Amino acid sequence: MSDITALISKLSGLGLSNAATPVEHAPVDSVEQWAEALSTVSGLPAEYTLTKTLIFKPKQPKSEAMAPVVVIAKHDSPTNAKAIGAELKLKELRFANDDVLTDVFQTAKGSVSPFALANVPQESIGNVRVVVDKALLADSTGNIAFHPLTSSHTVFISAATLQSFVQSVEGLTHVTEMDFTADAGAVAKAEKKPSSGAAATADDDDVAAAVSRGGIDVSKEVDFPKWYQQVLTRSDMLEYYDVSGCYIVRPLAYFVWQQIQEFFDAGIRSLGVKNCYFPMFVSSKVLDREKEHIEGFAPEVAWVTRAGSTELAEPIAIRPTSETVMYPYFAKWVRSHRDLPLKVNQWCSVVRWEFKNPQPFLRTREFLWQEGHCAYMTEKEAMTEVYDVLTLYRRVYEELLAVPVIEGVKSQKEKFAGGVATTTVEGFIPATGRGIQGGTSHYLGQNFSKMFNIVVQDPEDSGADRPKLHVHQTSWGLSTRTIGVMVMIHGDDKGLVMPPRVAETQVIIVPCGLTVKHSDEDRRVVSDACLNVEARLRAVGVRAESDLRELYTPGQKFNHWEVRGVPIRLEIGPNDLAKDSVMTVRRDNSAKASVAMAGLETSIQLLLSTMQSDMLIKARKTLDERVKIVLEWKEFVPVLNSKCVALIPWCERDECEDQIKTRSSRDSLGDEPEDDKAPSMGAKSLCLPFKQPTNPPIVDGETKCIQCGENAKRYALFGRSY
Amino acid sequence: MSDITALISKLSGLGLSNAATPVEHAPVDSVEQWAEALSTVSGLPAEYTLTKTLIFKPKQPKSEAMAPVVVIAKHDSPTNAKAIGAELKLKELRFANDDVLTDVFQTAKGSVSPFALANVPQESIGNVRVVVDKALLADSTGNIAFHPLTSSHTVFISAATLQSFVQSVEGLTHVTEMDFTADAGAVAKAEKKPSSGAAATADDDDVAAAVSRGGIDVSKEVDFPKWYQQVLTRSDMLEYYDVSGCYIVRPLAYFVWQQIQEFFDAGIRSLGVKNCYFPMFVSSKVLDREKEHIEGFAPEVAWVTRAGSTELAEPIAIRPTSETVMYPYFAKWVRSHRDLPLKVNQWCSVVRWEFKNPQPFLRTREFLWQEGHCAYMTEKEAMTEVYDVLTLYRRVYEELLAVPVIEGVKSQKEKFAGGVATTTVEGFIPATGRGIQGGTSHYLGQNFSKMFNIVVQDPEDSGADRPKLHVHQTSWGLSTRTIGVMVMIHGDDKGLVMPPRVAETQVIIVPCGLTVKHSDEDRRVVSDACLNVEARLRAVGVRAESDLRELYTPGQKFNHWEVRGVPIRLEIGPNDLAKDSVMTVRRDNSAKASVAMAGLETSIQLLLSTMQSDMLIKARKTLDERVKIVLEWKEFVPVLNSKCVALIPWCERDECEDQIKTRSSRDSLGDEPEDDKAPSMGAKSLCLPFKQPTNPPIVDGETKCIQCGENAKRYALFGRSY
Repeated sequence: MSDITALISKLSGLGLSNAATPVEHAPVDSVEQWAEALSTVSGLPAEYTLTKTLIFKPKQPKSEAMAPVVVIAKHDSPTNAKAIGAELKLKELRFANDDVLTDVFQTAKGSVSPFALANVPQESIGNVRVVVDKALLADSTGNIAFHPLTSSHTVFISAATLQSFVQSVEGLTHVTEMDFTADAGAVAKAEKKPSSGAAATADDDDVAAAVSRGGIDVSKEVDFPKWYQQVLTRSDMLEYYDVSGCYIVRPLAYFVWQQIQEFFDAGIRSLGVKNCYFPMFVSSKVLDREKEHIEGFAPEVAWVTRAGSTELAEPIAIRPTSETVMYPYFAKWVRSHRDLPLKVNQWCSVVRWEFKNPQPFLRTREFLWQEGHCAYMTEKEAMTEVYDVLTLYRRVYEELLAVPVIEGVKSQKEKFAGGVATTTVEGFIPATGRGIQGGTSHYLGQNFSKMFNIVVQDPEDSGADRPKLHVHQTSWGLSTRTIGVMVMIHGDDKGLVMPPRVAETQVIIVPCGLTVKHSDEDRRVVSDACLNVEARLRAVGVRAESDLRELYTPGQKFNHWEVRGVPIRLEIGPNDLAKDSVMTVRRDNSAKASVAMAGLETSIQLLLSTMQSDMLIKARKTLDERVKIVLEWKEFVPVLNSKCVALIPWCERDECEDQIKTRSSRDSLGDEPEDDKAPSMGAKSLCLPFKQPTNPPIVDGETKCIQCGENAKRYALFGRSY
Repeated sequence: MSDITALISKLSGLGLSNAATPVEHAPVDSVEQWAEALSTVSGLPAEYTLTKTLIFKPKQPKSEAMAPVVVIAKHDSPTNAKAIGAELKLKELRFANDDVLTDVFQTAKGSVSPFALANVPQESIGNVRVVVDKALLADSTGNIAFHPLTSSHTVFISAATLQSFVQSVEGLTHVTEMDFTADAGAVAKAEKKPSSGAAATADDDDVAAAVSRGGIDVSKEVDFPKWYQQVLTRSDMLEYYDVSGCYIVRPLAYFVWQQIQEFFDAGIRSLGVKNCYFPMFVSSKVLDREKEHIEGFAPEVAWVTRAGSTELAEPIAIRPTSETVMYPYFAKWVRSHRDLPLKVNQWCSVVRWEFKNPQPFLRTREFLWQEGHCAYMTEKEAMTEVYDVLTLYRRVYEELLAVPVIEGVKSQKEKFAGGVATTTVEGFIPATGRGIQGGTSHYLGQNFSKMFNIVVQDPEDSGADRPKLHVHQTSWGLSTRTIGVMVMIHGDDKGLVMPPRVAETQVIIVPCGLTVKHSDEDRRVVSDACLNVEARLRAVGVRAESDLRELYTPGQKFNHWEVRGVPIRLEIGPNDLAKDSVMTVRRDNSAKASVAMAGLETSIQLLLSTMQSDMLIKARKTLDERVKIVLEWKEFVPVLNSKCVALIPWCERDECEDQIKTRSSRDSLGDEPEDDKAPSMGAKSLCLPFKQPTNPPIVDGETKCIQCGENAKRYALFGRSY
């Protein structure tokens, strides 16, 4: 990005005499923030007009040079992408992505201004189209505000200077003036036509949303994938990484993971499990030992073949999971029944080089998880542990993340490769109507102990033919996917909503109600009160923080912490102090309440725990509404299409599961042939829930599978899934 | 391993009629344990003779087939390897390693018996030599005890049966009888000859040691590398792994790591550092960005080139450290001075595919560590943090691991590649006289921020030529090497000695003094007392555990927990209970003391903290004795050869450091040409200690470097090192 001073001298050089020295303020993300930021600066013009500068890109053949459109407009002009496209005869204008901003305009989101035109390389400037809002050209204040290449500064220029500047950009040929007010009516009408689809006007929503949401400029309802990406990146939870399918887990998200670790680690310790660490590398010989198991993972295994400039004699795999890494050593360590049970766990990362679309937290090529591996004398002991661990997984979701889950067992098709039975906690994402596997606890039976020869002599039998017993094994894993599920379920159009138990900052304290009338002493009193409250809350274990940053307005701070999902905001101002109280604002439902300073610790702790349980209650209510008992096939696909999952009487046969997937995919298409956005993904079994519906009950030999008509065994939960 | 029943039927088939059914007991590691184990079994012969079966291997050309020697002897016969070698005309008999036991005899350490001869493949049996102790053949009890292929069973046979069995082994031709008592005197004399060297008789020491040490059969003094390996594996701290240079960190060791994590994590949190997780993969483009840095790591980088059966378009590296992984994102996140300081840390594993000899914990291809990375506005802030973190590293070593370290700064040659200065805590291993780098905290200056363009605008300067400032960075790391250093410093010939603060089990409670005379009720009273003491200690946060296993004798339990280094043993028996006291035994110095039941919690807490500080005091005393001020070059190598490190007035020039290394290596050889076991490794600079000697002080312009005679700047610590 160019330097501001360079710009100023350039403007001066152009003879644009009223290019005042830029004013510094806090960096801003929205017009509201900008207005607030300027309100704290002294010596400004009495009247000024705020602006927005937007960069669009039309749909073009890849062979054509990109033709970006720069729209310079009054902040509240309805800059509708469709209308602009129509005016310029360009198809499907969309906001340009960050690469265009960086590479072509050498600027960044939030700092875009007309001055970025000066940065466009000579070979590209001829393709740029500029649209200037007529409302700006008619501006009467004489002071139009722009960011001079950074959102933490503002420069005020007249309409004439703006025009001179645009004209001064060498090579720029396409400049259009446009009256956005005139177009607004036409577009508003267009939006109401049902056939136009949501996507076509999303851009316009985006513009408005970006202003009101302070950072998140897509609605969860309108474009869920983009919303998810924005919430993760703009809350500083996650950063995209330059190796595809890998992501940076930033402190806000890692804190959640540490909370999960702490809870779960204590849980398994009380079950007698001990932590350890096995190498991440596996020799191919060992990896291949259990055939069924490795077939499940082989296509995703990453191979190291070279170290420095030396080719390895044998390629070495990076663990996709550690059954075959660990069990040869179990065979060594288990010599007698007195060495059982053997219970270990490790916190590590594993690598599964999937070629499907990666998704942060949900499907990543490297991910963090824990994997527990235990060996027992009997199936009964092993099964007890399988369930004990599953209960811990349910508690992680429900008690820590406020996410309701459905416990059950996987179908034969969906179980863990090489194991006997997989139990699971299944989550549900209401925004997409898709199920998501939350964590699995496997009973491996004696499959691996037979492959790896993990045996003991039967202590019950002292006869001459004393047999060798193969141990019964379990394995179980929970990953950082937990974090993605939490974000998807609780987040809203303002950003993250963090369940209090896992929020790094549970309470953010913001000084408020201070204006230019207040003295420094007034400000000090409020700051001290904030710090005092912070100290009181920290003393009782509440993770409280004061935001006393001077350059930022209260509104900017509210947005900052809302995007990051901080559960409770405490506002403290002179009026609150006069009443010996503080104002609390809940992130989940925006409920405001004044709370007395006396006993504040207890009030806040109560508020945090109320919010925690309210979030679970709300999410469970949604889940309950979206799990439908379906007794006839014809209802099945419509239920899926209404973003629900279905509990159906089922025969539990593999072939039937395949047929359900095929038919539900085909029927989806068949029902709505004209809409290519309809979800055509087939449904698969999510689990056979432990808690079976009783109305109507499955009657042995009478109740039939709704797909194939064979005898139904149990209700199964089917749905589209991640 | 063959089945016992199969063996019995084989013995019966051979007409060995008195091959009684084997008796079961706890698995045993030594003759003492064996005697104790048998003492708990009823229905045994009134008199019996315990035995030992040893397998040796002579020094042979690799081209020859291996000729193992099986010695079957009375448990207390002095089976001297030299004498046996002389008798058989075989050179340098050594104990056979585990591979020979497993592959040739299909048995394992601790379970070796004459019956393993039956397992030897037909193609090998002709090379096996058997030596039978004449004392056994003359045995009058008629009941010679052997382990029938497993140390948890005993079979009693007569001398005649033993002879018949040996004769029955098909293809076995070399059987010798030997009178060990007669040879003992001769060997005892041989041992006293000073020229014979320690190594030659180590085997004999080993035999005695294996009996008395319950598992560790090498002395720390005699064969330190083997001792280290045995202590790690037999204490269950670590297991060797089938990918070279990788090891399994078992729960006992991982617990230490978790204690370090907890302490250090709290420490850096209070410095404002937050945890995160960056991917383990780096694109080659990013890895190569900082030239000097990557040159330091390139030969050790592991490359992933394939996923499943798909060749990757570009090979992807596994991080050897994360500077280049993280800093492109620092450039993105740091936009203004208000984003500084940026402080993150991650707990992860890194991979450095070294081709030097790997050593558990000290040099491994994958290792666990934490790496902190921070960015600051100024050098001063960065340096403050460099020292703050170094202090935490020192505290980890001293306060948790009871290991004294020397703080200082690395020479230019030894500093971190790409950084400006490396501060370090240096440890010292008295057993080898070698220094070891304990943890490093780097000031990176602006090297990386210039490469990765991590800049802010100077907030102090609002002038027209407002410059961009490159941030000042730090990085710092501490690894599981800590655990290796702790083991090497504190361990003894009985096994691990764990500093109480990091011991998973701090107190082991063993019921004692119960004999066959005692009633079940007596036993119950003692057990209850143990559990009661355990509960009392746990209630005050002491990690206490009772060992109430029934099949094991107190002696076996003592050995079991001594190998594992448990700091305090509490013995509770009827006599102790009568006196309302318990017996405490310290692991570090074997001090025994009776402690009253009343106030036991406080007494034990005090004992643990005394032991913790005694261990540090003892280790520091040794360190202080081994750091020698050396003022003349001629003393330098002799000081190294006496297992010390040297503080020398030094010029701090790279060339001089090279010369010191070369000269100290050559001089070593020159001094002792006849002894090829003398350490010829050259010395390198370990650090320039912060705490400089004052007697004599370095006088600027007067004191000369002891190697080259240039002006000395500071005292530097030089030594052989890991």
